[in-house]
Formats: sequence, C-alpha cells, structure tokens
Amino acid sequence: MVYRYKVTVTLGILIYMDLFGCQQFTFPFKAPSNCNVEEFFDISSLSCAKCGPNQRRSTTGLSCICKAGYQTITTDKASVTCQQCPTDKPVLTKDGFGCIRCPGSLSDEGECQCPQGSILVEREVNGSLLDEATCETCHGKDTAFSVPNGGGDRYVSVSHSRSTDLSFWFIHTPTQEVNQGTSNLFAGGLCFPPSGLSTNVNPSVSYSQLVSLLTLAGFYFLFVWCILMNVFSNLTACQALGNMCVMNMHSFSGTSTDACGLFNTIFRSKASLSSTQDISYWRGNLPWLYYGEEPGLASRVLQTEPVPIGFSFRGKNKNTDIKLLAAVYNVRGEFLRWEQVGGGNLQLCPETTAKKVAAFSFGTAYQQSCDLSVAELLSTPPEPLFYDVFMDLGGEKSQELLPLPTLIYNQQYNGRFINQGGMKNWYLSRRIFLVDTLSGREKSMSSLPKVIRVASSIKIRFQLVPRTQEGKVFPPLMTVTYRDVPITDVNTQTVSATFAVEYEMDQNEARIKTDTALGVMGGVAVLYSLLKTVSWKRRISSPLIDVETMLKFLLFYAGDLANVFFAVTVGTGLYWLIFYKAQQFVSVLLPLPGQEEHFVTYIGCLHSVPRSKGTTGEPKRDPSPVSIWRTYFVANEWNEIQTTRKISPTFQIMAVLFFLEVLGFSNLALRDPWPALERSAQAYMPSYSLILRYGVAASLWLCIGLLQVIYFTVFHEHFVENKIHQFVDLCSISNISVLLLSHRCFGYYIHGRSVHGHADTNMEEMNNNLKREAESLCGQRGLLPNTDIQTFQVSLTNRLRSQYDRIRESISRRGGPSRLMDTCSANQFEQNTRAYHTMNHFLGSVIDHAYPEMEYIVKDKLMFERVIGMEFLEPTDKSIFYNDEAHSFSDVLFYGNEATLLIFETLFFSVVDLGSQSFVLAAVLTYVQQMIFRLIRNTLGRKNLVNKTLVDERFLI
Amino acid sequence: MVYRYKVTVTLGILIYMDLFGCQQFTFPFKAPSNCNVEEFFDISSLSCAKCGPNQRRSTTGLSCICKAGYQTITTDKASVTCQQCPTDKPVLTKDGFGCIRCPGSLSDEGECQCPQGSILVEREVNGSLLDEATCETCHGKDTAFSVPNGGGDRYVSVSHSRSTDLSFWFIHTPTQEVNQGTSNLFAGGLCFPPSGLSTNVNPSVSYSQLVSLLTLAGFYFLFVWCILMNVFSNLTACQALGNMCVMNMHSFSGTSTDACGLFNTIFRSKASLSSTQDISYWRGNLPWLYYGEEPGLASRVLQTEPVPIGFSFRGKNKNTDIKLLAAVYNVRGEFLRWEQVGGGNLQLCPETTAKKVAAFSFGTAYQQSCDLSVAELLSTPPEPLFYDVFMDLGGEKSQELLPLPTLIYNQQYNGRFINQGGMKNWYLSRRIFLVDTLSGREKSMSSLPKVIRVASSIKIRFQLVPRTQEGKVFPPLMTVTYRDVPITDVNTQTVSATFAVEYEMDQNEARIKTDTALGVMGGVAVLYSLLKTVSWKRRISSPLIDVETMLKFLLFYAGDLANVFFAVTVGTGLYWLIFYKAQQFVSVLLPLPGQEEHFVTYIGCLHSVPRSKGTTGEPKRDPSPVSIWRTYFVANEWNEIQTTRKISPTFQIMAVLFFLEVLGFSNLALRDPWPALERSAQAYMPSYSLILRYGVAASLWLCIGLLQVIYFTVFHEHFVENKIHQFVDLCSISNISVLLLSHRCFGYYIHGRSVHGHADTNMEEMNNNLKREAESLCGQRGLLPNTDIQTFQVSLTNRLRSQYDRIRESISRRGGPSRLMDTCSANQFEQNTRAYHTMNHFLGSVIDHAYPEMEYIVKDKLMFERVIGMEFLEPTDKSIFYNDEAHSFSDVLFYGNEATLLIFETLFFSVVDLGSQSFVLAAVLTYVQQMIFRLIRNTLGRKNLVNKTLVDERFLI
Repeated sequence: MVYRYKVTVTLGILIYMDLFGCQQFTFPFKAPSNCNVEEFFDISSLSCAKCGPNQRRSTTGLSCICKAGYQTITTDKASVTCQQCPTDKPVLTKDGFGCIRCPGSLSDEGECQCPQGSILVEREVNGSLLDEATCETCHGKDTAFSVPNGGGDRYVSVSHSRSTDLSFWFIHTPTQEVNQGTSNLFAGGLCFPPSGLSTNVNPSVSYSQLVSLLTLAGFYFLFVWCILMNVFSNLTACQALGNMCVMNMHSFSGTSTDACGLFNTIFRSKASLSSTQDISYWRGNLPWLYYGEEPGLASRVLQTEPVPIGFSFRGKNKNTDIKLLAAVYNVRGEFLRWEQVGGGNLQLCPETTAKKVAAFSFGTAYQQSCDLSVAELLSTPPEPLFYDVFMDLGGEKSQELLPLPTLIYNQQYNGRFINQGGMKNWYLSRRIFLVDTLSGREKSMSSLPKVIRVASSIKIRFQLVPRTQEGKVFPPLMTVTYRDVPITDVNTQTVSATFAVEYEMDQNEARIKTDTALGVMGGVAVLYSLLKTVSWKRRISSPLIDVETMLKFLLFYAGDLANVFFAVTVGTGLYWLIFYKAQQFVSVLLPLPGQEEHFVTYIGCLHSVPRSKGTTGEPKRDPSPVSIWRTYFVANEWNEIQTTRKISPTFQIMAVLFFLEVLGFSNLALRDPWPALERSAQAYMPSYSLILRYGVAASLWLCIGLLQVIYFTVFHEHFVENKIHQFVDLCSISNISVLLLSHRCFGYYIHGRSVHGHADTNMEEMNNNLKREAESLCGQRGLLPNTDIQTFQVSLTNRLRSQYDRIRESISRRGGPSRLMDTCSANQFEQNTRAYHTMNHFLGSVIDHAYPEMEYIVKDKLMFERVIGMEFLEPTDKSIFYNDEAHSFSDVLFYGNEATLLIFETLFFSVVDLGSQSFVLAAVLTYVQQMIFRLIRNTLGRKNLVNKTLVDERFLI
Repeated sequence: MVYRYKVTVTLGILIYMDLFGCQQFTFPFKAPSNCNVEEFFDISSLSCAKCGPNQRRSTTGLSCICKAGYQTITTDKASVTCQQCPTDKPVLTKDGFGCIRCPGSLSDEGECQCPQGSILVEREVNGSLLDEATCETCHGKDTAFSVPNGGGDRYVSVSHSRSTDLSFWFIHTPTQEVNQGTSNLFAGGLCFPPSGLSTNVNPSVSYSQLVSLLTLAGFYFLFVWCILMNVFSNLTACQALGNMCVMNMHSFSGTSTDACGLFNTIFRSKASLSSTQDISYWRGNLPWLYYGEEPGLASRVLQTEPVPIGFSFRGKNKNTDIKLLAAVYNVRGEFLRWEQVGGGNLQLCPETTAKKVAAFSFGTAYQQSCDLSVAELLSTPPEPLFYDVFMDLGGEKSQELLPLPTLIYNQQYNGRFINQGGMKNWYLSRRIFLVDTLSGREKSMSSLPKVIRVASSIKIRFQLVPRTQEGKVFPPLMTVTYRDVPITDVNTQTVSATFAVEYEMDQNEARIKTDTALGVMGGVAVLYSLLKTVSWKRRISSPLIDVETMLKFLLFYAGDLANVFFAVTVGTGLYWLIFYKAQQFVSVLLPLPGQEEHFVTYIGCLHSVPRSKGTTGEPKRDPSPVSIWRTYFVANEWNEIQTTRKISPTFQIMAVLFFLEVLGFSNLALRDPWPALERSAQAYMPSYSLILRYGVAASLWLCIGLLQVIYFTVFHEHFVENKIHQFVDLCSISNISVLLLSHRCFGYYIHGRSVHGHADTNMEEMNNNLKREAESLCGQRGLLPNTDIQTFQVSLTNRLRSQYDRIRESISRRGGPSRLMDTCSANQFEQNTRAYHTMNHFLGSVIDHAYPEMEYIVKDKLMFERVIGMEFLEPTDKSIFYNDEAHSFSDVLFYGNEATLLIFETLFFSVVDLGSQSFVLAAVLTYVQQMIFRLIRNTLGRKNLVNKTLVDERFLI
C-alpha cells in the first residue's frame, strides 16, 4: 500500500483508477486479545474500535460494557451508554442494567454477597428490578433436592439440574462445602436432607497414574448418590459411578476405595438380589462392569460355547456381516441411545465410511492405524462416551444380543497388570470409552487437561470353533489398551490409535499335518538319496565308501530334502489359497502374522539348503579328421545349446509379473475371503498374508512354467525348432560323433556318422545327399545297422576309461606348469595335436569294434532302471551302450535340468518377495540371478569345451 | 438357552455347573421404543420394567412420571409416588412436583393458560410454590428488550437470549405474532417498543431451490433487527443477515427482497459512509460479502497485483507454507474465533492430519475426494459455521492479511449462473459455509431436514506471476460449488465432497516455445529428408522423380518428423522434471491436467507416425567352392547376428523397472516439488503428472540405454566379445567374402580371403595359420595389398548390377510358378546350383578385376559424405568401393539401427505407460513388442538368407 500512495503523487488520476480497481486488499491482523482495555473487537471490520465513555471491554472482547459501578442505559437511538449508580442504590446488578441496594455485605469486587448456601435475588419474576436485593436459602421442603440454576439466581428441582454443566461435579465443588450439620446438606452443589448418608468411606482415593483427576468431593458425592438413588430407583447415579470406574481402566485394589472399589462394595452388597437378564455378573440397578473373579473363567467364557450363528462366505446363506450394537452412556450415567457399531464409533482414525465398514465384514483382517493430533482430540466435546458393546445375533421372534467380553490390557488388580499374562489369569470386563479429556482437567472446564486418556488400541478377535463346518465362532474378545498422554505441547503432540479385527483358528492341527508330511517325505528322501549315491558310486566305478561318498550322500539328501520342503510349502500355500478363498461356510481361517513365522522358517531353511545346481558335464568330442570347419560348426552349436531351456526364462518373469501386478493376482494374497482380482481404490485393502503371497507367487510361477514347458515340448519343438534334435542331426550330417562323460565311467554318446560316407563336400552334393536321405535311398543313421537310434547312455569299462585317461594326459598337461615357458609352446602344441589325433583315432576304433579287449554291447535299458536312474549291470568286461531315444544327454545341459531350475527360480522369486514384499524387485533379482547362472554356465561350458576338444576359443562365437 | 434347559431335566447337577460356568450370555434386545406405555427402559439391565401405580412412561422412555393430574411425591425411602392433586389446587405445575390454582382458563391438556404475550409463573424465586399461579407480561420499562427465558417462566434481558436455541428464530415464530399495535411489539419472540420499524419491505421471499427454508417472520425480523441494531452499534444482526445471504449461495435478483436483496439494500444505503480497512467493498458494520459489480473486476483483482510474499522450495529462504486464517461466525452472526485453516476445517473428507496438512504446502497439487454419508452429516450439530478466509502474509510489525476472493459457482444473479462463464462476468464474493443442515428443516429442530446444502467442492487455485523469479503469485482464488441434497433415505444417501489446491501458470509461452522448436526442427527435417531421398535415388540409380520417390520422401519425412517430435517431447518432459523439481524460488509450475492434453496429443501423433523400422537388408554371399561347411558356418553366424544389439533389451526393461518401481523413481512424477524417491506411507500422495511421468520414464530409458551402449561399445566389445568383428574375422579365416546389397546399386562388401590361400584344412594347419598370422608372418587381410581394411561400402555401376540380376534371375524363378510342378524340381534344383556357381564365379572375378568393363576403384569417403550419408560421385563407369572401417554394413542389422530401436522402445514404453499409468504393464508390453520384432526380423532375415545364398534352412540353427 505504501509505495502505491507514493506513486499517486506523481501520476494523479490514472493511479486513482488503479487504486480503485486493483488495490491490494490487505489489512493488519487483529484478534480480540490484541485490543486494549478501552477497545472492543469490531467483528464486521475485524479491527479494534474504541469503546464509549465509561466503558470497557467485555470478557469476550467482542463488545463494550460499562465500567464497574456504572449501569447500562439503552436509549432508543443511541448505542449503549453508561451512567453511574445513584448513591441510594450503589451496587450494580449482575446483568449490569440496573442499580440496587445490597442485603448484606459487599464483596471485594463491589458486588453483593450472600452467606454460604444462599443465593442473591435481584429481580421479580416478571423481570422488574427490586429496590433491594434479597438472599434466599435453599428451602428443601417439598422436593427432595433443589439446586441453584445455571445463573445462580434461583433454585430448581434436581431433575432440571442434571442437564447443567459437568464442571458442576468435578471442579466447582470444594471439599470444605461438604459440611454435615443440622441444616440441609449442601454437598456437590446439591441440597438434600441429612439422611441415608454413610460416612465410613475412606476418602483417600488413589487414582492411578493420573494426577488429580477428580476432586474428592465429586467422588464421594457420587458414591453417596448412587446408594441413595439406588434406593429411589434412580439408575443414572450408579451408572455414573461405574463410568468413573471405567475411566480408571477397571483397576482396583481390594483395600482402597477408588471408584472401582466403591463400585464393588455396592456390587457385593447386591449379591443376594436377583441378577439381571439371567447373567450372574449383572446385578440389578448396577451397570455390568466385570465378569467374575473365578480362575479360568476367561477361557470358559471365550472357548466353550460357540455363538449360535454361522458365518458363510457365499451361497444363498451368505452371511459375513458382523453386527455389533452398543449401548451408549454419557459420563453422567445417562443412557443416550443404541448405536450400530461400524459408522466409526469405535474407530478413532479418520477414514471414509466405505473403508470403516469393511472392518465388520467377517474374514477381512482389518487394521487401521494413525496418529491423532492431540489438539484435534481436545477440540471435540470433552465428555467421554461409554460403550457397552453387544453382538446382534438376530433371531425370528426377538433380537438376541450377546455381550462382548472385553479385556482391558492395562487393568490393574491390586497393582498387578493381570491381563497382560496368560489367559488363565485374565479378568474380563465390560464397557469401554474412547477418549477422556475430561478427568485430567484440574481447576475449570476451560483449562487444558494435564493428561488425557485414549483407547489407543481396540482389537476384536474372532476365534473359529475347531473343525466347524458351519462357520461357528466363539464369543469374540475385544481387547482395549488405554494410553495416558501427558499434555506438554498441544499443537505438536500426537497419539497413535489402532483399530483391528482379527480372525484366528487353532493352527496346531495344520502344523502337525505339515510336520507329518515333512517327516514321511523326508524318510522317502533318505532312500532316494541312498539310491542316487549308489548309482553315483557305480557310475564313477569306485566301490569304496569313503568320506567323499558320505559328502555326496549328504549333498544328494540336502537336494532331495529341499524338494520335499518345496513340495510341502507350495502345498501349504496352495491349501490356504484354495480353502480360504473358496470356502462357502467358514471352516478355515488364515494363520495370523505371528503364526505365519513357522511357515516362513520352513521356506527360510529351504532356501539356505544348498541345492545341487546344474551339473557341468564333460563333453568329449570325437571328430573325424580333415576340414576342421565341421568340427567348428558342431562345437559352436554345442556351445550354444548349453543354456537352452524348455522355457523362456525372461518370458516367464514377464508373464508372472503381468499376472501378479497388472491382472491383479496379487490381490488374492490379501487377508480377506474374496477371490476378486480387481479392488476399487475406494475399498479397504487388508494387509497381505505371507502364506497366501507365497502360495500365489509359487503356484503362478510353476503354472506358467509348466504351460511353457508344455508349449515348448508339444508345439514349439515339433513345429518350430528343437535345438537338441538339430544338434543330433547336425552330428549325423557333419559326420561327427560326440562322447560326453558325465561321470568317470558313465556318459552319453551321440553317434554321428554320415550315411553318405563323407561330409566334406560342396553344396550340390550336400543337397543331393539330403534329398536322397529324405527319399530313404540310403542307409539309416543308427549305430547298429538298420536302426535309427543315434543317442546312447554308455557305461564304460574301467579299462576303456584308463586308456582314455592315458591319451588325455598329454593334452591336459597344457594347463600345467609348462604354460609359463613360452618357448615350449610350439612343442606343446604339436604334442597336443598329436594327442588329439590319437584320441580321435582311438575312440573311432572303439566304436568300430577295432579293439577286442574294449568291446561293447548295445542294449535297451529296463523300465525300472530308467525310473530310478541307475544301471543294474556293471560294465566289467564289456562297455554297455544303452539305447536312449529320449536324448538324455541333455541332462548335462540346462535343457535336461529344467525341473531343478524351475523349482530353484520359483523359490528364489518367492523368497525375495517374502523378504521385500515387492514382486517387481523379486522379478528383477530373479532376472539377474538367471543372467548370472547363464553366464557362469556358459563360461564353464566354453572352458570345458576348449579343454576337451582343442577347438580354439575364438571359433566359439 | 432353550435346549440347555431341556437337558437340565435329565442331567441334574452336572448341567447346573455348566450353566453357571459357561452359560451363553445372550438376552433379547430392547430399546426405549419397545417398551409399552406403562413400562420404562431400565438402563442398567437394558430391559423394560413396569412403572409404579398412577405412573406412565416419560417422553424419553427412560423413567416413569406421574400420569396427568397426579403430582410427584418423593419420600425418603421409597421411589417416586404419585398422588392426585387436591380439588382446591387442581392443576399440576409444569415440573410436576406440585399442584396449583390457575389464574385464568385451562388449556385442552389441562394446563394453565396465559394470554398471548405473557407467561405463567408458578414459583417464588426461592423455589417455593405459589398458591395460585400468576400471568406476568413483558414489562419493557428499563431495558429495551426482554425475552422469555428458555423455560418460558420469566423474562430475561435480550443479552441473555442470544444464546438460546436457534429454533427460536426459524421455527417457533408464526407470522401472525407480528402485530403492530400500541403495545410493545412481540416479534420473533422479542419484545421491543414500536419504533424505528420500516415496513416497506416486500415479504415475499424467494429462497431459490430450497423448499421453505426460513419462516418469513424470522427473515423480516432479522432485517428489521439489522437496521435497528446497526443504529445501536450491535453488529451480530447484520452478520446474521449476511449469513442468510451466504446460505442462499450469494444469489440475488435486483428486484426481489430475499436475504441477499435485503443485505444489498442496507449495503447501498451505506455507500456514503466510510469503508472499512480502506476496502471499498467492505462497509462499516456490515460483513463483506461481495466484490463490486464492475465488469472485469474479477480479472483485475485476480491478475494484476501479486501477493507481496514469495514462495521458495529450498535454500535458507525456504517458504512453502500457505498460511490461511479464517474468521469463524455462527449462523446467529456471532464471531466465534480466528482459526488456522488446515486442521481440516475446510476439508470435509476424513483423513489423517498429516495428509490434510499437505494441502497447504505450496506446489503440492492436492486433491481429496470422498463420499460422505448423509447420516453422518446429520449427526453433527446442525448449525452451520461461516468462514471468512484470509491469507496470512506475516510481516515484521503487524501481521498483514489478504482476503481470499471467492467464486461461488452456483451464485445466481437475476436467475443467471454468472460465475459459470468466462472470467469477465465473474462476480467475486466472500464468506462460505460447509454444511447447512439447518435451513432445510421445516417445523422443528428435531425433524429431519427436507434438503441439506453441502459445499461439495472447494478448490483453491494459485496462479504464478508470469516470469517471476521470486515465487510471486497472484491472490489465490477459492472456488466453491454447493450442492443441494434432497433427503430421501438418510442411511444410504451419500454426497461427494472434494477439496483441492491447484497451481497454475500461464503455459502459453511454453507452448509457443514448443511450437517454435517443432517448426524450426520440422523445417530442418524437410531438408534432411530431401537429402535422404536424393541419396536413395542415387543408390537405386534411378534418375526419375516418380510417385515412388514422393512416397519415399514422405516416409523419410515422417520418420524424421517423429524424431523431431521425440526430441521435443523428451526435452519438454525433462525441462519440467528438472526445472520444477529443482527450482529454488518458485518460477515454474506444472501444467494442470487439462493443459497436459496438448502434450499428450504430441506424443500421440508421434507414436502414430509410421516409423521406418529396421531395414531388412539383402545379403548376397559370395563363397568360394568346396566344403560347404564354411559357408554353413558363415551363414549361420550371419543369421545369428541379425538381431544382435548394442544393448541387452531385457536387461534394459528390468533395469528401468527396477529404478522406477523399486528405487522409487516413479515418485519423481508426483505433482509436488519434492525430488524425494521414498515417500512414507503416512504422507499424502499427490496425483501423477503425465508430463513428468513421460519425462521420468523416457529419460530413464534413454539414460540406461546409453549407459548400456557405452558399456557394450567401450568395455564388452573390447574385452568380452564383438559379434560384428567376430563375423568379419570369420569371413577372413573361412575364405568367404560377403556382398550385401541394401539398395539396387549400393551395398556393403566384406572381403573374406584367407591370407593363407585356402581355408579348407584340418585343425593342425588351421592352428598353425592362426599362429603365423598372429606373428605377422603372412600377408594382410585387406582387399588392396598391404592394407587391413576388409569392409567396404560399394556403389555399383548399372552394368554390374544388370549382370548380377541376369544371373540371379534363374535362381529367383524358384519362388515362381514352377514350385507347383514337383516333377520339375530336380531340374530346377540343378539349374539353381548352376546359377549359384555362376554367381560365385562372376562375383569372385569382379573382385579379382577379371572383367575390364566392370572395373572398380577403392577410395576413402569424404568426411562430409559420411555425415550426410550420401555419395557425391556417381558410379557411371567404374564401381566405387569406399573404405569403411566402421563396419557400417551393420546398418542392415539391428546392430546398426540401435538409435532407432532405442527411440522406438522409449516411445513404446512411455506411451503404454501414459495410457495405462502402469510401468509394469508398459514393461511387459515392451518386452512382448521386442520379442515380436525380433521374431519378425529373424524370420525375414532367414528367408532372405535362404533365398539369396541357397543355404538350406535346416543349417541355420
């Protein structure tokens, strides 16, 4: 504004327009407290304005009133004017409009004063002013109680007083006013005759933790009133006393007389009278606050008799609504209304109604937490509400209610926190409140409380009846934890609040079943591992049982055990997924997060078990000489099929990610019974169940993997390409045989002999050859005449192997110390080449039956041998070639170990996801893992190939 | 319970125990309304209990009262008893505790009746009962106004009455009571002298849309009162009248006298008086409800003068707090308090404080919507609160306030919705309310309203001053839309509520810049495309400008234009990302979702532009005869490098996904100024900005792509493997040359001639050869003697090409009609083979300079030629071989088109993401796209290879 005016001086009219149209509408901030004593806050202009003569600011600061001793005169036209009181009526009336004489003495503030127990009356009933004020005492004749009205200028009957301000009880009642004399008792602001009062109550009230919650008199008064009123059948007093006890978290000690102690005194005195509603803990005219003290009562209440309704997730009897009703009382003990629980009355956290309602859909694990600002809690009405919560069971004739047993976590009994231990010591109770900002106030209702008490956690837990088929549950338990928040800085302080609904079933049975399955299958695994070890021993042709054998056995066993664990865990995950999400009547409930730990431990072990991963075979090549290019071609192809798989690993990851994240399969793992894939953004999202997450991820991975395997083996390999077949064909056409030794005396043989005698030819001849073969004009490709079988498993005799080793020795020395001496390399190279030729010649001769002492026979493998993967015959005299149409030489490649790889990746994916709760991260890491494994395998395979076949690494491209 | 009892009969004591310990605590539901007339609701047992003799249920149903004509006697011990009134005092007092005589007639209900304007008094001030009741009239002598108190049994001065129930104004004031006689006027429940009343107001009030919101008298009374009180300097009456106008959504017509009309009458009458706070639209003693009616005032207020504070996102002057203050009034016009806006006072949707506060952090686009349940709205106090919202500007000396201009979207002016059009017609106003459940009530406060009015949308929009460097904004505009909800079914009805804070800057400049960039670069693209076309024409050696040329030009142009668009859009995205997220003083703001459409259109066009994708080259092979295996090997390798790229496409996808979803880079695209990657689950999540999403995704994709390219070209290809080099080496060693013709007369030549004369050799010789070469003992590999250059770009003469075509003709006929005649195939095959040999011989001879008429020269390409990708020399006489060390033959492979592929994938990813808002889906689809492209390329490449080189497809494995 300032600079604008400066400009005005120079620019005249032009700026005037500007000022009119575009002035910056700012003005200084003023609040009523900013105005001084002779100003008031003008609410229309939001600024301070001067008061008239003889006037001063009112307490609110929003208007002016006359100074002390000046009466307010309101004339027709002018505003309020003030005029000094005449000397004969020197004192101002309470409303300030008149002057009056006093009946007695004057107070320090210059107001009329009446003796204690009486009130000042200044006006007639019709509003006209008396000449002299009178002091009227409580007359107490025809109505039992009379109390001063809100203005303190007349008496009204007690039925009117109850709606007055609460502060009346708690704060404005100094103890000294409780004087028991001959006159009417003026206690707690009430005036009643001196009868029916028992004074044997110890007034030393210990209100645990809170500083000075209630003035003693208010307390004492309530107790007396409850007894009195009980006699008069007035019920609110006892309710109010009960509420005091609830505000004290139901805590009491047997000796002292705090609110709960007083309540129990009355409770016990009523033991002889009939109980209410046939419930022995609910005594006439008293609120029901406690279940009995009998040991073990809690478990009998909570785990004996099921609730007589059944929950069902689908079908025409679908019933998932948990209907809870609450009887609501205010702190004065008045019954306010019946309320449906669910609109958020027990849920302190702000949330949309749609989400809040989800808490009461059976089977949906609900948890809502937030930090509430203390300032906001204080801005709500201070009076706490008290809730008696019931479950509405419905019913044809009458609506039946079941009281919800409540466990106050902080409840003390003689100073011990009895409800924090095991169930056998629990002391169940009833009635709760949410926020109490009232009892922490010390002097007046307008002061800040020193401390507030908040129900920071409310948890309703349903327990399924074991082996129920009708969705029966035991009475749900409501657990409430209160928290005391000392008020230090209102604006920044927060208090956390949680509302949760949990569902539980006894998981022992499921655990025993899992353990049994593990035990049985573990036993089978021992046998299978033994078999594998024996087979291995035979294949390396070593009869000794040495440490290596033991280690090998342990390794096999670890691998098999891992498979067992995998089967069991995936089974468990799938079991929960299917049974929980698809059940009609509620018969299983998910394990709670705590109960899931067991399962996660299984998976943890499982993954740490070293898995015997991808065998690196030892391929040996047997190429016939001349034109190295065929060898290069074959070696190159072999190098390429090292990591060929029956699935596309990347497609696998992408597909799983697509199903989980885009199609929403991850929503199946939510802790609710709905199998819906799409969730609205408005709806409540429960937390994820680890078991379900594992179940969904693992089964999806396996499913897509299997589908891929089926697609590749059934369609792709028949109609597009089959790398393994291609390789075998290539061997045949290129006239190159391949011998792969996976064990010392066991391996695979691919018979590659061109049916045309030689393969080193030009294109024309090659094409002709192919054509002739297609027209079956030449011999067949098999090892034996007139057979087609080119691939064999071979069991070599020791003799053959030794001979082979001798020839190889000269080659393998290449990797030895001679490497350092470069001068030797030429010599070395020649030696290698010679050995290479020797080896080729030797192997070729063996195949051609050239050495009688290294003869071999060809036979079929028995079915049983195939199944257990072991040969019964030992190749003592002759090597044995087993026909192998299934190309099992792929067992030394990734291709033949698809199951192991798939299981490993499933596990890897699931475990990363369990740890990080992120499918995307799991996918990325699985991809990296695949990449690394492929790299390792390729590097090792290439090294091996170069070592064993002498093909230059530069040709393996 | 029933079956339990049945069992009791047979099992005796045993069942008693059960009954005691584990009884099912259920009981029937009862509410006060379920009890009959002679029962009351026992709140301690929650059941109905009988009343005593002569008693009936009270109205609440919670206690018993005496029947009519019976007085209540409370003795010491017993409960309430009722006793008939004696005949001399036949009438019950109002409180029911006494009997009394009546001063006049009796009403139909048997109660004492007083004449209109007077009240019934039954008791002395001290509470003792009179013998006969009296009727007292309003005395109106010394105080100007007196009104009956709440109980209606005495008069109090008007200052006390204002805190009485609201219903007093709106409902309980029948019009006929407004009688103007000689006596004191008893209007609206107030009693005041007959002066100062002007009656020239038309009482036919039209309260638009709402049914019968206010009784006429209440209205009339307020108007009168405002005028009167204004005189007496009492300010609440005018505030109340203003509030009535606000509740009517500020709507008025020039003629009628609804609340706003009445307000304006007073407003105009005050024009001469001084304005408040120097603001001409704020008149003394009146609330400020309207800005002026001058045309164009809105834009002058909103877009002329910036707010004198600057916002800054970081640095020591960091200032992002939007401090709003509200002066809160109740419906009676009383000023309640100053309130800090932010704790949720304007935000109707339930949300945690932490999230609500986020709305007032400058730069964070905030939007919170929800459906509020009508039942919940009705359960809050019915009295609406009125907010005058100001912006707190701070200041050293005094705190300055800036009033927020408000636009009521539904405001009517003479029946037209003026604020729904353009800004030039806007009629700005002040003061809003949130929920009004009061004025829709018809008869009493306890009845349900017929209609409620809710501020269903509150939007605060900040507009940045153009080209500001200090984060200046214009005065923010608050837009409020009210919605009337007719109450039909309280429990199921909902009403949507939205609170939003938006930030806007003038995007025209940015748009013009973008358009300019597009225009300029588009022009360059025309030139470049022309150049490409010319180059293409020359390479296919066709001088004619025909339709094909035009089409080709358009195709080139489309591709170039796409690149231009891509550069501009990525630039724009990055610009916003960097400037918005990194700015210190606020100087740019994100485009609003509506403004983003323009950008999305660009990207849309961009993606639909057909991109000239991956050229499928036409490789021609020139192998020397004998041992087809070398040819197979080379063809196979060529087949394999078809889709080799400079990046790993899957790794690319995984890495991008990892950065976006796991590391949280996607959070950079949120509409707030914070560059944080991790967001707490508790914090508010703004919506995503499409531009930022595009910017993040595209730049991340490009960055990772570039990093990969750098890694592959710098590290991987030097130290691990380079497929392209390997292929060239292979050509050389295998003695096979490759001629690739990408155009009719242009292509690439890889000179493969073994330096050892021949390549068909065994391993020993091969190894020796390699060794000799490594020791430089033999010649070099180049085409020209003593050079190393093996790869060339070739421009062929027409003559050479024609010769080539002639030879090829015989081969290509294979694909012709002859295919159907199988008998011909043998013949055909021979012919092909012959042609193949001819071709080999012909090409080999050309290279060896055997044909003088098909001579060629070798030269270096000019730098400029390389840059624009065009040859200046035409190969009229001799073919030209350009040295090409850069292996540019990879241009016919994926390898040489990495940039195109990368850009295409970036776009594909971004566009899918923009459409689906899901990075995972985008990743999956990009993967599928890559797979399909690879498949297509491999299939086409393989077909081409088989066609042109006659290598059997079965060898391409």
